[in-house]
Amino acid sequence: MSADTAACPVPVLVIHGGAGTLTRGAMSTEQEARYRAALRNILQAGQLQLAAGASAVDVVVEAVRQLEECELFNAGKGAVYTAAGTHELDACVMDGRGCRAGAVAGVSRTRNPILAARAVMQQSAHLLFVGAAADDWAARHGIEQVDRAWFGTPHRLEQLHRAQQLQAGVLRDHDGQELVHGLQSSQASGPIDEQTKFGTVGAVALDAEGHLAAATSTGGMTNKQVGRVGDTPLVGAGTYANDATVAVSCTGTGELFMRACAAHDVSALVAYAGLSLAEACERVVMQKLPPDAGGLIAVSARGEVCLLFNSEGMYRGYVRCGDVEPLVAVYRSE
Amino acid sequence: MSADTAACPVPVLVIHGGAGTLTRGAMSTEQEARYRAALRNILQAGQLQLAAGASAVDVVVEAVRQLEECELFNAGKGAVYTAAGTHELDACVMDGRGCRAGAVAGVSRTRNPILAARAVMQQSAHLLFVGAAADDWAARHGIEQVDRAWFGTPHRLEQLHRAQQLQAGVLRDHDGQELVHGLQSSQASGPIDEQTKFGTVGAVALDAEGHLAAATSTGGMTNKQVGRVGDTPLVGAGTYANDATVAVSCTGTGELFMRACAAHDVSALVAYAGLSLAEACERVVMQKLPPDAGGLIAVSARGEVCLLFNSEGMYRGYVRCGDVEPLVAVYRSE
Repeated sequence: MSADTAACPVPVLVIHGGAGTLTRGAMSTEQEARYRAALRNILQAGQLQLAAGASAVDVVVEAVRQLEECELFNAGKGAVYTAAGTHELDACVMDGRGCRAGAVAGVSRTRNPILAARAVMQQSAHLLFVGAAADDWAARHGIEQVDRAWFGTPHRLEQLHRAQQLQAGVLRDHDGQELVHGLQSSQASGPIDEQTKFGTVGAVALDAEGHLAAATSTGGMTNKQVGRVGDTPLVGAGTYANDATVAVSCTGTGELFMRACAAHDVSALVAYAGLSLAEACERVVMQKLPPDAGGLIAVSARGEVCLLFNSEGMYRGYVRCGDVEPLVAVYRSE
Repeated sequence: MSADTAACPVPVLVIHGGAGTLTRGAMSTEQEARYRAALRNILQAGQLQLAAGASAVDVVVEAVRQLEECELFNAGKGAVYTAAGTHELDACVMDGRGCRAGAVAGVSRTRNPILAARAVMQQSAHLLFVGAAADDWAARHGIEQVDRAWFGTPHRLEQLHRAQQLQAGVLRDHDGQELVHGLQSSQASGPIDEQTKFGTVGAVALDAEGHLAAATSTGGMTNKQVGRVGDTPLVGAGTYANDATVAVSCTGTGELFMRACAAHDVSALVAYAGLSLAEACERVVMQKLPPDAGGLIAVSARGEVCLLFNSEGMYRGYVRCGDVEPLVAVYRSE
């Protein structure tokens, strides 16, 4: 799923809701439809904003906020549990105009981490706050705080208990996949198996003034060790935007994206190696990252979009101003 | 200070002890000599290791550990205080061989954050741990823990009180420099003014087998807000190593290096734009980063070294196997 555009770029919004192991048929058609509808609704809302002249930053923050509010996705409400039965959420936003960014990691009381990230970008000389101090900072700056229990859902708690019963540690990579292979058909609860899904949500956009922005938010990995931070809140790893090149939001095994500086690498390949957006994303996702690492969404300053992953599925979609319907997809072959 | 090498690279170690505003003459010759001797001793120890066949990772970790142990530098023992009168230390190490990395941020009980970072790299599937959980992880993996008071020195505490009396918030950027300009001659206590010095230590090395590594550690900024994390522990921002390109360790206003993905950008400019190490560092430090942002040290896979900064001074030095004496410098014009 990728598309080129004319010389005069039309505003566009691209979103993702995580990548992971495909388990087609593991859930009801009705539940799959719920995922697709959620993506479509969020894209349509963003399309309206872009058409009304909203900035790329406002549009990606609002899209991610809605993804955080939706229990289906592992960010904000519906975040997975750590090994300690707690929640630790990370988010980052970057404005391609001036390459300013804000991020929080390991927050546990901030209802919408992406709003805290934006506040950091707009109101702090710093870029990244972590832990309880990040919640405190957000609270002092008027960002809504909630009880820790607010994030939980019975479904996510069941996932934690299952993971812990398996004594699987964090379900990830080859180990994780081996451990849950036998469970997919009976226990998976979405079109993408929740045990091996890399739960992250993200958005990238190009606005009518030609500015780019990227935003990413996550609840981490089920049964992850407390204090672990992945690629999501890190500029250049899981999130990057630069008006001169691209905006990128990643989802996958965070450590692999951190070591690869994946989001910034796409930008560098476009800027320095003269690759097209599609070529740059192909190089990073299909050649540099190991198989099943995850995927990313990207939009270039020219309005090209790319939604690419090397896992079996990724919740994703995009819409341009003027499109009758957003394009929404989950599996590889669609 | 930069140097090219022959086709067959000789092992080399490069270190820095922070960059900032120069205050030549603000301290005794004796005290300045103490800084230079510390850098020289650490370089000589690393030179011996490299000559004995030690890996680049072992050499940069040991160099940074010694810099952490030295009270003169803002890392480990001698770390600056946060606004809350506490210490929060960050460190990262990256092995150019396979691009593996480990990092901790916001630790307050781990005597040598760089040893915790190396343990994360070697023993965890994760890359970055933050906060008290990072200390806990380190403790469980046999990394020495100390009382919080251990990090403090009367000198650093005086710096905090001075900063707080000035109600200056974090002393940084233009604001910071304006606020402390009048104080430099009387209150600065090193050849680089401690109030505007970007206290970070780092090392990069090329070993006899052609492997690269980078390590960085910091105590943050005097009077910084609790929970703020800068570029030091972030792969691609303050620290990066890749055997195919370069190893880089940065020091400066962290947020600027994070937004620029400075360390990875040097690597990308070498890999994709075909620049030499010196050209790539020049592009990033002198053209992309704003004035007074700080600086970096770098070594390429071909054994070139570069020590470059756009502030007024940077504690720095390097030594190759076979050199009679390390080269050590502080000010711009030497």
